[in-house]
Amino acid sequence: MFRYPNGKVYQPKEQEVKKKRQQQHPSFTYSNRGMSLEDDLNETNQYYLAHQIAVIHKKPTPVQIVNVDYPRRSAAVIREAYFKQSSTTDYNGIYKGKYIDFEAKETKNKTSFPLQNFHNHQIDHMKSVIRQGGICFVILSAFQQFYFLEAEPLFTFWDRKENGGRKSISSDEINKYAHVIPQGYQARIDYLKIIDKLYF
Amino acid sequence: MFRYPNGKVYQPKEQEVKKKRQQQHPSFTYSNRGMSLEDDLNETNQYYLAHQIAVIHKKPTPVQIVNVDYPRRSAAVIREAYFKQSSTTDYNGIYKGKYIDFEAKETKNKTSFPLQNFHNHQIDHMKSVIRQGGICFVILSAFQQFYFLEAEPLFTFWDRKENGGRKSISSDEINKYAHVIPQGYQARIDYLKIIDKLYF
Repeated sequence: MFRYPNGKVYQPKEQEVKKKRQQQHPSFTYSNRGMSLEDDLNETNQYYLAHQIAVIHKKPTPVQIVNVDYPRRSAAVIREAYFKQSSTTDYNGIYKGKYIDFEAKETKNKTSFPLQNFHNHQIDHMKSVIRQGGICFVILSAFQQFYFLEAEPLFTFWDRKENGGRKSISSDEINKYAHVIPQGYQARIDYLKIIDKLYF
Repeated sequence: MFRYPNGKVYQPKEQEVKKKRQQQHPSFTYSNRGMSLEDDLNETNQYYLAHQIAVIHKKPTPVQIVNVDYPRRSAAVIREAYFKQSSTTDYNGIYKGKYIDFEAKETKNKTSFPLQNFHNHQIDHMKSVIRQGGICFVILSAFQQFYFLEAEPLFTFWDRKENGGRKSISSDEINKYAHVIPQGYQARIDYLKIIDKLYF
């Protein structure tokens, strides 16, 4: 054991980081910490952007604005507005010249991922993106992991539900068809690693 | 002149459409009619989407939500929110496998297009998109036309301003460096025609 002159125990950076991650992610669920799946993805995308790796952003939440106050010329205050359902996925952008499009969802369910997390028009949007030759997928936060599930197998599970089959994807199916996303310190949910493996 | 049995004068569809367009667009400005540049682009993009030509959407207006009321479980009402400045352009999507990214702006100015219509972070975003190999441009509604100006010449004009030069693009420069977008009935601002010419 090595100590600094001030008596503090020396720990190499890497270990410090890992320890911190473990403290932050005791079970990789979002319930007990300040960060959300959206926060982690935004930080990941900011890292990609700052290092000129990719340009991928979350779209703003769609809001129907009904009433706006102008107390001063400079500051408009929205006084009445409503959440609208999005007709697309939440994230899109470009990576190595390719169009990237995805949705991120989480479940606390321990044995399956409920398909009610998705909406019909989102699935339609994903199908349109695939037809145009884009890279389209979903990021699932489930079973203490982040999963990368391509749009095509998702369509299969969706169609099964639409035809009266089960309303969720079982954890076995996810482990078979989805890819576990490596977690990093800077690129927290490093999904481009999976895209590199699958498309480049 | 040909008349229907009910006495109405026959007009071929094409002419009817043209006449209607001329009534709607007496001088191609938005001041005297209900439609905005955004409306025309949304209709154009809806046409592209419905005909599986491209998947391009306007991003929602970014809003900072401060206070939400829940009078009933089903209906959340946003009671205090503020407009935020976007860190990207307003429109993006995919066409023939290529990532498409653009901003749309208009001016009533008759001799030049003011660069104050753009923000530094939008220009930064466009530069990032170009670095990733995307198709990036602006649509300018000016001088009774719609113009397609690629990001690269826009950067040149922007840098000229940043270096103390003129704060606008002259109409001569626009006519030299930008492409006039053909107007149609269904694809009102048919900018993919220009993309076809320049990139495919």
